[in-house]
Amino acid sequence: MEVTVAIDCMGGDHGAHVTVPAALDYLERDPNTSVILVGNEDTIEAELHRSHSVARSRARVRHAAEIIAMDEAPALALRGKKDSSMRVAVDLVKDAEALACVSAGNTGALMAISRFVLKTLPGIDRPAIASILPTLKGHTYVLDLGANVDCSAEHLLQFGIMGSELVASVEHRERPTVGLLNIGEEDIKGNEVVKRAAELLRASDLNFYGNVEGDDIYKGTTDVVVCDGFVGNVALKASEGLAQMLATYLREEFGRNVFTRLAGAIALPVLNAFKRRVDHRRYNGATLLGLRGIVIKSHGAADVFAFGFAIERAVEEARNGVLAHITDRMHLIQKSAA
Amino acid sequence: MEVTVAIDCMGGDHGAHVTVPAALDYLERDPNTSVILVGNEDTIEAELHRSHSVARSRARVRHAAEIIAMDEAPALALRGKKDSSMRVAVDLVKDAEALACVSAGNTGALMAISRFVLKTLPGIDRPAIASILPTLKGHTYVLDLGANVDCSAEHLLQFGIMGSELVASVEHRERPTVGLLNIGEEDIKGNEVVKRAAELLRASDLNFYGNVEGDDIYKGTTDVVVCDGFVGNVALKASEGLAQMLATYLREEFGRNVFTRLAGAIALPVLNAFKRRVDHRRYNGATLLGLRGIVIKSHGAADVFAFGFAIERAVEEARNGVLAHITDRMHLIQKSAA
Repeated sequence: MEVTVAIDCMGGDHGAHVTVPAALDYLERDPNTSVILVGNEDTIEAELHRSHSVARSRARVRHAAEIIAMDEAPALALRGKKDSSMRVAVDLVKDAEALACVSAGNTGALMAISRFVLKTLPGIDRPAIASILPTLKGHTYVLDLGANVDCSAEHLLQFGIMGSELVASVEHRERPTVGLLNIGEEDIKGNEVVKRAAELLRASDLNFYGNVEGDDIYKGTTDVVVCDGFVGNVALKASEGLAQMLATYLREEFGRNVFTRLAGAIALPVLNAFKRRVDHRRYNGATLLGLRGIVIKSHGAADVFAFGFAIERAVEEARNGVLAHITDRMHLIQKSAA
Repeated sequence: MEVTVAIDCMGGDHGAHVTVPAALDYLERDPNTSVILVGNEDTIEAELHRSHSVARSRARVRHAAEIIAMDEAPALALRGKKDSSMRVAVDLVKDAEALACVSAGNTGALMAISRFVLKTLPGIDRPAIASILPTLKGHTYVLDLGANVDCSAEHLLQFGIMGSELVASVEHRERPTVGLLNIGEEDIKGNEVVKRAAELLRASDLNFYGNVEGDDIYKGTTDVVVCDGFVGNVALKASEGLAQMLATYLREEFGRNVFTRLAGAIALPVLNAFKRRVDHRRYNGATLLGLRGIVIKSHGAADVFAFGFAIERAVEEARNGVLAHITDRMHLIQKSAA
């Protein structure tokens, strides 16, 4: 399937310097895609001129005069910057010129703009941020990672449905398992919202595994892990912090003296293989799930390699019809409830 | 200062086989301590007979007929097993025969029994579970790690006060910095409880740093990190899961073939130094903070080495008068509020 992706070229810490080369790299790898590069025309053209990619013909430029800053208040960005690269990229999805959009910009602004422009899918109250995390068994999808800080049990159920359909469509897995993040496996554990959410999930037709704990995320116990955005965000960032600390310690130990440096040189191929395997850039690209359009948020600090994975995610979701999957499922649920 | 610690010898996955040798090892290292070994007399005596430790003279045995199982319901354990090793160990603190107690048993039962027997300190509504985590700068204290799944802003303030006094007394640090775990640094972030807690912490005379994020735990941004028990537990367990996953991956990469195994053999001293540095056993021993007595919870799977750190924690808190510090502070606060 031919997929066109709108790219907010000005977002993120590095802007067009990362987004444009990443888009061209991606186009070269996937001949059935095209991109609309959104942002300051001169800046984007300058980046395009540097490239000799044969894929340039599948990249159009759409000028947008404004840029939303990384620390700009979402409400102000939404109301005040109607010609920002982020807004125009989302508008292109709304107008069906693109099947998906990708931005490395301000998360709050991207969520506010996407909700306003695209609206949520039928039966979905709030979009959630879903991301892939590596596990001992492969990888797992976790949502919400920070869009919703006060969730009801019904919201958690909706996250479960969306996560399940996301995995079913993108990973071609039938009836993915869904776990509810809690502080113990027993039914009596957790706060009132989580206990009630477990009841709703159990009564649903999802393949509900039951409660899972923080370590189950990385054990890969379930295909989907559902949680409140506050909890999910803290767990994700704590993981990032721990990984950085461990990497620093490992570097320090190998850098201690001439003998440890020699050992490090000998172990380098192994350490590099390890590094490749846990490279968080491969997991770049969180989905703003539950909108009437595919919106992918890249990490702000993403480099060309990492941003490419966010584009890939957008294409995969468009190609596998994630939104139709969720819509069909919600329709079935609403029909059976009526 | 001479300190006597009561030890629940029957708790944990390994019982007396770990707790008794760990107690004797600790006594050898610290001549100003004595222990009361609580549990089945025959089992404990058998373990003592295996040892030739000169420190045996500082270990008394107190028989307790019952054992609380790891999966026993806390309420049943509290009501039904008044002669359990855990209950008797806590009773010894209440009766001032010991200054602190340590158990590797069922966390819920230990919390329920401790609250019932010891009661909370004046001005403290609920005890919190506080633990030390390693950071890039040294270590930090995080609470609550799972005792309270629904916290009010006032509870979070109390956790901040207790954590601050814990660090001030045990680490001899004046005015430790206190961070509030949130999903962004800005004041507008977070749910209503956390926003209100930030106001209370800012208005208090604590050295409040402001909001911190999940990665700040391991960056060591503040001396104390305060959070709801649900969030803290998930963050801690997610960290455990990630660390285990990374360790498995690293082992797998070094075990891949004869060349990687050779590289691993050469790098072994460095890898062992790294392992020692991140050894979670060194951080074993969580404090049930806010009770009228010192109660330390060891990890259930703790070995002799790890359990020793839990005993050390108990002795350190007793020796540095943590409870008097918290009581004095709460008294000052209540006086100034009156």
